[in-house]
Amino acid sequence: MLGNTFGRLFRVTTSGESYGDALLTIVDGVPAGVELTDAMIQEELDKRRPGQSKLDSPRMETDQVKIVSGMLEGRTTGAPVGMIVYNVDRHDIHVQQYRDVKELIRPGHAEYPFFVKYGEFSDWCGAGRASGRETVGRVAGGAVAKQLLAREGIEVMGHVTESHGIKGRPLTFEEIKANYRKNDLNCCDLEKADEMIADILKVGEAGDTCGGVIEVVAHGVPAGLGEPVFDKLKGTIGGGLMGIGAVTGVEIGAGFHAARVRGSEWNDQPYLDEKQKVRFRTNYAGGLLGGISNGEDIVVRLCCKPTPTLSVPQSSIDMDAMKEKQLEAITRRDVTICPRIYPVAEAMVRIAIMDALLMAKGLEQLTLIDEKYKALSKTARERGEL
Amino acid sequence: MLGNTFGRLFRVTTSGESYGDALLTIVDGVPAGVELTDAMIQEELDKRRPGQSKLDSPRMETDQVKIVSGMLEGRTTGAPVGMIVYNVDRHDIHVQQYRDVKELIRPGHAEYPFFVKYGEFSDWCGAGRASGRETVGRVAGGAVAKQLLAREGIEVMGHVTESHGIKGRPLTFEEIKANYRKNDLNCCDLEKADEMIADILKVGEAGDTCGGVIEVVAHGVPAGLGEPVFDKLKGTIGGGLMGIGAVTGVEIGAGFHAARVRGSEWNDQPYLDEKQKVRFRTNYAGGLLGGISNGEDIVVRLCCKPTPTLSVPQSSIDMDAMKEKQLEAITRRDVTICPRIYPVAEAMVRIAIMDALLMAKGLEQLTLIDEKYKALSKTARERGEL
Amino acid sequence: MLGNTFGRLFRVTTSGESYGDALLTIVDGVPAGVELTDAMIQEELDKRRPGQSKLDSPRMETDQVKIVSGMLEGRTTGAPVGMIVYNVDRHDIHVQQYRDVKELIRPGHAEYPFFVKYGEFSDWCGAGRASGRETVGRVAGGAVAKQLLAREGIEVMGHVTESHGIKGRPLTFEEIKANYRKNDLNCCDLEKADEMIADILKVGEAGDTCGGVIEVVAHGVPAGLGEPVFDKLKGTIGGGLMGIGAVTGVEIGAGFHAARVRGSEWNDQPYLDEKQKVRFRTNYAGGLLGGISNGEDIVVRLCCKPTPTLSVPQSSIDMDAMKEKQLEAITRRDVTICPRIYPVAEAMVRIAIMDALLMAKGLEQLTLIDEKYKALSKTARERGEL
Amino acid sequence: MLGNTFGRLFRVTTSGESYGDALLTIVDGVPAGVELTDAMIQEELDKRRPGQSKLDSPRMETDQVKIVSGMLEGRTTGAPVGMIVYNVDRHDIHVQQYRDVKELIRPGHAEYPFFVKYGEFSDWCGAGRASGRETVGRVAGGAVAKQLLAREGIEVMGHVTESHGIKGRPLTFEEIKANYRKNDLNCCDLEKADEMIADILKVGEAGDTCGGVIEVVAHGVPAGLGEPVFDKLKGTIGGGLMGIGAVTGVEIGAGFHAARVRGSEWNDQPYLDEKQKVRFRTNYAGGLLGGISNGEDIVVRLCCKPTPTLSVPQSSIDMDAMKEKQLEAITRRDVTICPRIYPVAEAMVRIAIMDALLMAKGLEQLTLIDEKYKALSKTARERGEL
Repeated sequence: MLGNTFGRLFRVTTSGESYGDALLTIVDGVPAGVELTDAMIQEELDKRRPGQSKLDSPRMETDQVKIVSGMLEGRTTGAPVGMIVYNVDRHDIHVQQYRDVKELIRPGHAEYPFFVKYGEFSDWCGAGRASGRETVGRVAGGAVAKQLLAREGIEVMGHVTESHGIKGRPLTFEEIKANYRKNDLNCCDLEKADEMIADILKVGEAGDTCGGVIEVVAHGVPAGLGEPVFDKLKGTIGGGLMGIGAVTGVEIGAGFHAARVRGSEWNDQPYLDEKQKVRFRTNYAGGLLGGISNGEDIVVRLCCKPTPTLSVPQSSIDMDAMKEKQLEAITRRDVTICPRIYPVAEAMVRIAIMDALLMAKGLEQLTLIDEKYKALSKTARERGEL
Repeated sequence: MLGNTFGRLFRVTTSGESYGDALLTIVDGVPAGVELTDAMIQEELDKRRPGQSKLDSPRMETDQVKIVSGMLEGRTTGAPVGMIVYNVDRHDIHVQQYRDVKELIRPGHAEYPFFVKYGEFSDWCGAGRASGRETVGRVAGGAVAKQLLAREGIEVMGHVTESHGIKGRPLTFEEIKANYRKNDLNCCDLEKADEMIADILKVGEAGDTCGGVIEVVAHGVPAGLGEPVFDKLKGTIGGGLMGIGAVTGVEIGAGFHAARVRGSEWNDQPYLDEKQKVRFRTNYAGGLLGGISNGEDIVVRLCCKPTPTLSVPQSSIDMDAMKEKQLEAITRRDVTICPRIYPVAEAMVRIAIMDALLMAKGLEQLTLIDEKYKALSKTARERGEL
Repeated sequence: MLGNTFGRLFRVTTSGESYGDALLTIVDGVPAGVELTDAMIQEELDKRRPGQSKLDSPRMETDQVKIVSGMLEGRTTGAPVGMIVYNVDRHDIHVQQYRDVKELIRPGHAEYPFFVKYGEFSDWCGAGRASGRETVGRVAGGAVAKQLLAREGIEVMGHVTESHGIKGRPLTFEEIKANYRKNDLNCCDLEKADEMIADILKVGEAGDTCGGVIEVVAHGVPAGLGEPVFDKLKGTIGGGLMGIGAVTGVEIGAGFHAARVRGSEWNDQPYLDEKQKVRFRTNYAGGLLGGISNGEDIVVRLCCKPTPTLSVPQSSIDMDAMKEKQLEAITRRDVTICPRIYPVAEAMVRIAIMDALLMAKGLEQLTLIDEKYKALSKTARERGEL
Repeated sequence: MLGNTFGRLFRVTTSGESYGDALLTIVDGVPAGVELTDAMIQEELDKRRPGQSKLDSPRMETDQVKIVSGMLEGRTTGAPVGMIVYNVDRHDIHVQQYRDVKELIRPGHAEYPFFVKYGEFSDWCGAGRASGRETVGRVAGGAVAKQLLAREGIEVMGHVTESHGIKGRPLTFEEIKANYRKNDLNCCDLEKADEMIADILKVGEAGDTCGGVIEVVAHGVPAGLGEPVFDKLKGTIGGGLMGIGAVTGVEIGAGFHAARVRGSEWNDQPYLDEKQKVRFRTNYAGGLLGGISNGEDIVVRLCCKPTPTLSVPQSSIDMDAMKEKQLEAITRRDVTICPRIYPVAEAMVRIAIMDALLMAKGLEQLTLIDEKYKALSKTARERGEL
């Protein structure tokens, strides 16, 4: 694998797999002076932790995180923040189950292309790094970004807006915030949430799985973030989300609706608010004009496919014998991945925004050191000598 | 701007803007020995050239490309391929038109966030690098990738599948190939194409614009391409396409439909074909499992918003005076950007695939030099000495 | 900090500091199927471990490493290799010593510019990440590269050739190998070694420190590695070594001697050996022509300055009070860093070569999977269908 | 080739070779609002232009540069700056000379490893991109950096301090500035310069070549630049210089002298100057402590080997026939490359410093836009709302 780092300045590098000893996360580009605790990271990891409701996998991982570097006396030092999460629920019984089917293609699962790349050395145990377990590192990295963004007044929240064809109604950022994590699915349209959950349970009982749509909103992002032309925020957020295993589509603002309306409807009209700040009357653009932030809420939606692992038999191929064979039912699985993917999506959006912020502002400007020390690094122009 | 390079090994770096002297493209990571001519690049540039039909902008750019480096006697040498396209249609009358409105926000356009970033130095002339004119470099870079991919048996084709709410029917790769570029819109459902074109002309007459959906199919991609976990092909293709100015959404395979079906329907079932090759009975996954290619056609769709430039007045803000003001109608514009964006989308997909191919295969393996020379760089293991 | 990753495809990312909880290393770009054990990494870490002789710091770190990801049943899986080393010798007495002088500039030490960057949040405890302790991660990463290079027949060895003005005689690769690590200094000119060691002990008794020169030789590197023009092996090895804290100069082959000879003497003359392989009669070039490997031994020398920490008082500045003040003697220090830096230099050279090898050969070619699985990822050209 | 971009944020990408049509340079990361003219770039290119004295190659290249993008009304817009230099002196007679020896290894020249990489497709014409001609792009990129650095009060100057064993005396930055480019060699020790030049001419008459040492001094660099631990300024400057074709060694400050002195001599002692600024009494460290700038002049020296091309016969190998053969004398060559490499070295140092400056300060802070526009991109914290 050659792609385990995300971001250009604010960079999250991860390692770890489904049944390895531990998952490591190293976050580079952290300004000095930020308060950071294990509990802050844990709060985010707890959102994606399995076994919290009937909707997700019964695997019991505590996902306890420990920050082991980059800190002194409760604050970041500017050094890379290193974090460890040990895998605990990996008993022989489950390892044996995976060993029994290690040559079999699991339909809809990333294991097959991994097998093509790594052959007989491919990690067959719980799908190795093709497992969603790698997203622990994304969430840990995003949790660091969350604290940094908070200092600039930027908040990012994700929620489920559609599940297996049942749609919630459009919500404002305030409504999302008010109803955030009020149910097992984290659907902030509380009425629809019950209907969705009942439906998911029924799907699960049938041994099947289903998908849905998640919306992530970033509030308080200043205008002007994103680097033209290939590293626009639209591209880095879009690519970051599309890179999550289960995601099959991403749209910004009114998204695919753009194919159906006229420019005169689509173009958000600008106005000056009471503070003489440029605002837009609508937000079809989802806060991104030409891919650069315009000061409105960044709104992005991603579609998650049904979990590939079913508890009904599926057709398969034995890669060693090279013949077709049936894959038996597997029991430990998430019926829907939606309630566990929104924290991953929040994390990717946070990392992308933080990275763009760092490119625009520079490390120095985001490091809140005392003015007298800041003066030490001033250029002649900044000191007014030119 | 900090983001004018796309790709990690096969890297396309571009410069140039709407009314600058010239657009430059440098392509790094080109294996030696590939036949390449100006005409091959020109063929792709001609697809996105304006002024070819009533659907697009009347700006008259010839977009003549010249390869100026990286070649010897008609073949690449391994050195970076440099290309120049001069801007020609930039007469005083148009410059003056842009000068007259240089402080005015154009609704729906990237100019505003560019203004936030670059202030009074922002390029107001034809939107500078916020203009779609920068995509000349993407297409030139993609044209180089096209030749390299062709040597491996990989073909990439884009076509318009929806325009202003009118949808074409699903098509196989063979159907797309047979009907490719048969009409001004490059809609390969030939019946629907006429309906779409008539509709677009009507929209244009009203001074308005509209958008649509483009599908890109990559055929012949070997299984196993893409680098977990952040540089999967799904992420790099997705991010590459989302980074195109007008794009508001991207989906892979059956895309957003995933939110509505069960896993038992979604999971493409594998089988062995007559050559004992692993194939899949359906292609909901769009050729990408967990983001890595599985050997099936890679199918991706992107939604383009209506062109923001209208020939009807819009509300605006004068950024210098900081007060609201009306923006008058602008006449030179594309009614729909779809017939000019599909070559850009093809290019981005080609670059992303070529980059992944290079990471997997290495530069050496893709350079078709004589075996006797290849032996010169063998390691002890390759020479069988270990 | 924004620079904690080294390499483009084979990438080593590190975190950790002098008195943090642990040092993490993540190695991306590891081909699948390689045997790798904690002991293999430990062997390299043990070379740079402090407290092994009177020449180095009495700090007692066991530097026990544990590989926690990227492995299955003793072999790499292609997933990033994650490693943990816990810091153990960090008792209150030492922390307090550092706290007492935390606002004082240590002459010759990186702490001052770190203070400029991170101000009051700068890690004052044992110099934080400005300490040589960060090189644990470099060595761990290099140890992974060592195993991969060994599979290709490439060996890298470093040794001390000069200490405090006393020079050893030039040695062949075979002589270095024969006398490797035969004394506390790892000076492979065994006669001179005794003289050097006696001199260093005398310097130490005076409360002072001294530096020296280390030579690293890479044997068995195939011709053609390195990427023109900015990522040539000469540039990446040179930059990698210059990036080590204590290094003040780097030279390749006959190095600075080039300023004194004529071209007719300098140019290594080529010939064909008995196996018709291109060889060179001399190796002024140090195995790198124009920065690309030519098949001869890569020979590089680096100069290390005396350790800045003295056990005699030095002038200093109190950064908080902003006035001059004396810095008292510090007792825990290395008299010479040479016997602990050669493993770091070996590591950097290995990582740079491995990275270049990966770019040339591609991940696939270096992954030794079974041919039948390898066939799954072949392109049409490779399958002979074009 | 995979390495034609230098820098992480301030990035110079180049293409072009000895006998191609043109050399292109794209500079990304240029803040908006900087005055920039062709003449500013030309001034730097003229320094490295051949045919200016008897010391260098008689090839007649005018090296006329044209900025073709990234500008509006004489100022940068933030868009990437694109530049073109056409090759003009490439007549059939010279092409034929190269064709005649295209299979022959030129001793000491990068052509051989290029041949190993690219085989029969390797550019044999004037050594292609293995020629020093590629440095045109480095100098063009460095010239852009020069203007940006000047705005911050940073100056970079290179000069020849040793030629073929004849050494000049140590000079202060003011002395270098006073005697800069006062003779064909750009040796600022004016007395020694005559001696050096007479010696070089004698070497040239004998058909031979020689090398020397160049020193580059960066004045006015603020403390705190460089990114630990792998992208410290020491590493990026060191790597950038080592990547220049002819360079065989690099040292910072007192460099290799460090191997001979004690710590008590080497450690530069800090003091507070009359403006309460931290200064150092000596500059053994060459302005870089632990690789990060400390506010003193950055002093770096690089050693250049003798030009490999001789006008006396040398032994060689015919790569096609694979047998030994004599290489006849070549007439068009530089007797010493020193007077043409110092501008390249200046350029690399400038690019590395600019890149570090950009990472520290961020693009926004270096863009001198009007305060009222700057306010548009402020975060909530910057606006004082948190």
